[in-house]
Amino acid sequence: MDKNAKPIVVIGAGLCGSLLAARLAKRGQKVLLFERRTDIRLTGEEGGRSINLALSIRGLNSLNLVGADQEALKMAIPMQARMIHFKDGSTRWSPYSGREGDYINSISRGGLNALLLDKAEQNKNLEIRFNTPCLSVDIEANTATFRDNRNGKTFVQEASVIIGTDGAGSAVRRSYLARSSSSLFNYSQHFLEHGYKELHIYPNDDGSHKIKKNCLHIWPRGNYMVIALPNLDGSFTVTCFFPYKGANGFEELTEPSQLFSFFKEEFPDAFQLMPNLISDFYNNPTGSLGTIKCYPWTTNGNSLLMGDAAHAIVPFYGQGMNCSFEDVLVFDQMIDEYGLDWATVFSAYQNERKKDTDAIADLAIDNFYEMRDHVANEHFIRKRNLEMKLEKQFDDYYSKYSLVTFRPDLSYHEAMVKGRAQDEYLMKICKQTKEIENIDLIELNRDIKQKIWR
Amino acid sequence: MDKNAKPIVVIGAGLCGSLLAARLAKRGQKVLLFERRTDIRLTGEEGGRSINLALSIRGLNSLNLVGADQEALKMAIPMQARMIHFKDGSTRWSPYSGREGDYINSISRGGLNALLLDKAEQNKNLEIRFNTPCLSVDIEANTATFRDNRNGKTFVQEASVIIGTDGAGSAVRRSYLARSSSSLFNYSQHFLEHGYKELHIYPNDDGSHKIKKNCLHIWPRGNYMVIALPNLDGSFTVTCFFPYKGANGFEELTEPSQLFSFFKEEFPDAFQLMPNLISDFYNNPTGSLGTIKCYPWTTNGNSLLMGDAAHAIVPFYGQGMNCSFEDVLVFDQMIDEYGLDWATVFSAYQNERKKDTDAIADLAIDNFYEMRDHVANEHFIRKRNLEMKLEKQFDDYYSKYSLVTFRPDLSYHEAMVKGRAQDEYLMKICKQTKEIENIDLIELNRDIKQKIWR
Repeated sequence: MDKNAKPIVVIGAGLCGSLLAARLAKRGQKVLLFERRTDIRLTGEEGGRSINLALSIRGLNSLNLVGADQEALKMAIPMQARMIHFKDGSTRWSPYSGREGDYINSISRGGLNALLLDKAEQNKNLEIRFNTPCLSVDIEANTATFRDNRNGKTFVQEASVIIGTDGAGSAVRRSYLARSSSSLFNYSQHFLEHGYKELHIYPNDDGSHKIKKNCLHIWPRGNYMVIALPNLDGSFTVTCFFPYKGANGFEELTEPSQLFSFFKEEFPDAFQLMPNLISDFYNNPTGSLGTIKCYPWTTNGNSLLMGDAAHAIVPFYGQGMNCSFEDVLVFDQMIDEYGLDWATVFSAYQNERKKDTDAIADLAIDNFYEMRDHVANEHFIRKRNLEMKLEKQFDDYYSKYSLVTFRPDLSYHEAMVKGRAQDEYLMKICKQTKEIENIDLIELNRDIKQKIWR
Repeated sequence: MDKNAKPIVVIGAGLCGSLLAARLAKRGQKVLLFERRTDIRLTGEEGGRSINLALSIRGLNSLNLVGADQEALKMAIPMQARMIHFKDGSTRWSPYSGREGDYINSISRGGLNALLLDKAEQNKNLEIRFNTPCLSVDIEANTATFRDNRNGKTFVQEASVIIGTDGAGSAVRRSYLARSSSSLFNYSQHFLEHGYKELHIYPNDDGSHKIKKNCLHIWPRGNYMVIALPNLDGSFTVTCFFPYKGANGFEELTEPSQLFSFFKEEFPDAFQLMPNLISDFYNNPTGSLGTIKCYPWTTNGNSLLMGDAAHAIVPFYGQGMNCSFEDVLVFDQMIDEYGLDWATVFSAYQNERKKDTDAIADLAIDNFYEMRDHVANEHFIRKRNLEMKLEKQFDDYYSKYSLVTFRPDLSYHEAMVKGRAQDEYLMKICKQTKEIENIDLIELNRDIKQKIWR
């Protein structure tokens, strides 16, 4: 490797950026990875706004690019089902799949990020610079300007190519936007009218979990939803998804007494588990839930957007991280196919990947309504039961959720199209028939295969 | 008026900004109007990218707010019809309306802008600062930072309220975007795959127009379209709308010989009229055609976006300027209703206006396809003829185009909904019936009123 060659500059050492940088370095590329924050391995994670992550097979396959999949699983807790909590304190166990091996894994963002930074640093041809925010990117000159926060000095970094993995608030994307009229950069950001707030359920004194461990807990209440994901230390990270405005919205819940009675009334069992409710609620920030789409992702073949920088999505399919990891996998396949001709690789990558990130963005918004609403709806429950039976009985039957989550051989777009068509077909049946026990499953599965999969 | 009171700061002295500033000053408000360009009255207009404007009744009604409507009409040329030019040199006269009084007016952007700056400056309580680009707006502090280009100095201006009328590339909107995650600012910019290029048809030696004066000329060729609007000096401003990519797209037409033969083949009569084709084509820039939508338009009641800054649209309905002028009219009505409580006025204004600017944005994109395509389509021509007959015979019949263009009593949104439903109904008839002469018009008009207008 030419010591004077310009490096690949990767901006953003979050989950996507550190996996990408590690992989490129493993392929022998000279990589310089910049991160605006301090090294998470020294300081720990920023608290209060880390929706827990659900790692599934698309993500695991991608982590395998740098041999990090098994280590990641060791720090994760399998979640086999959603446990739905009703207002009267009763619960329902709703498996993610009729197949036992199909589950998702609760994992901490910070721990996983640290693992990937370790993997990246194992390469001699890779260097990480923390505390170094990107201020701007000069697309034409192929340089990026950074500030070194340790001495306050700004400097200009030359690059062979620049890859922006700097998340939903991407500085690289901002540079694309600034030159938009000449480059025809399509861009949209759209926010839900709901925000989120992190709370916490602490472990029992013996370190065990206070509620069932191997599942994702949901308290669906129409316009309000609370979820909880298990952590290794016996705690749960709880997230409230509430509207900003209106009765009991974030803007209205300004009085502790109001918050108290709202939780006691709507989420009585969760309320019991959180003596720390009031301090968590008022100390933690309210996060927004936005979808960002843009295109093209590359400029003249000398820069590229990946991960949340290219496609931020809402968290309701548990696929944001998996999608960003899969970006790296697809990108890596393009290098296999086209070699190190970056202009060709960037262009092939965006042509291949855009429809899939659009699909998971739309699916994630759909699932918001499904989670907070439908999971407590009679027809929906019947359909879910019917699908469980189908998945248990037939190797080749997959629900929409399973197609998206457990079938990495299908692209998100294929999974969306097939999954939506299946859903429509099954919902029609479940609205007409109360007695799903009488349905001929063999015939139904055959019908679905013939009508939807052909 | 308190001499020390903070002024209303209007940023952008284009068409919308100068009308708004003039109106606010006429209402007795202290107004400071900033413009990044030089005074257009001293230097004339920037050439090469000024799609000519079509002034119609919505715009005229709004100009009447400052008594500028009659003066504007004096510098305009009425256009009663589209004249469609076919490849074989034949033409078709396609009136905008079956009613004689319903026409649109070709007007120069520069002349109209100068008129409005004159109107604005008649007010002692208004001051205009040219050559003073806005660098940023501090929404929370209610201040804007400008650079005075005459001395290079930047300064901070305090404001009672800030109104951004600084066009599609709005600096004010950029400040909204920069704080987006906390303010839930929804934003999208989307570009057509077509760009535009300005050309020119010069007058005859005696100053007369080389082709018919009182119409908008169109050469529709599917994926390619050329239009021409008359100027007072006997010339026409010609605009080509071509795709960027593909055969004979802007990126491909790099050779004069290629351009030459393409025009000669596709637009033979226009080609004859433009001996200056090659120099115009290669000297003028290629402009992009973008739609910008965003919301909310106001922040905490201390700033507001208006005109193209809030809603840039493509030019194919001839309504961009009229819409921005009508913004001022609607805003003025809100002041009538709510007084000078800006937070209330801004909020009422955006609630009232957003659906209408979305509607005209969508209509303008539809019309792109209609103009370049449908005007040469058999069913469409039959439908257009049928509508002419309806408009001639019935006072209460208006085509979609007429509803949008000649019925300022209807909002754009109402015009769109009614107009689209009518179009669908008539297209169905025109696909079934070749002989529109046999249609009972009285019955048809009654049906439309009953089925669509109720």
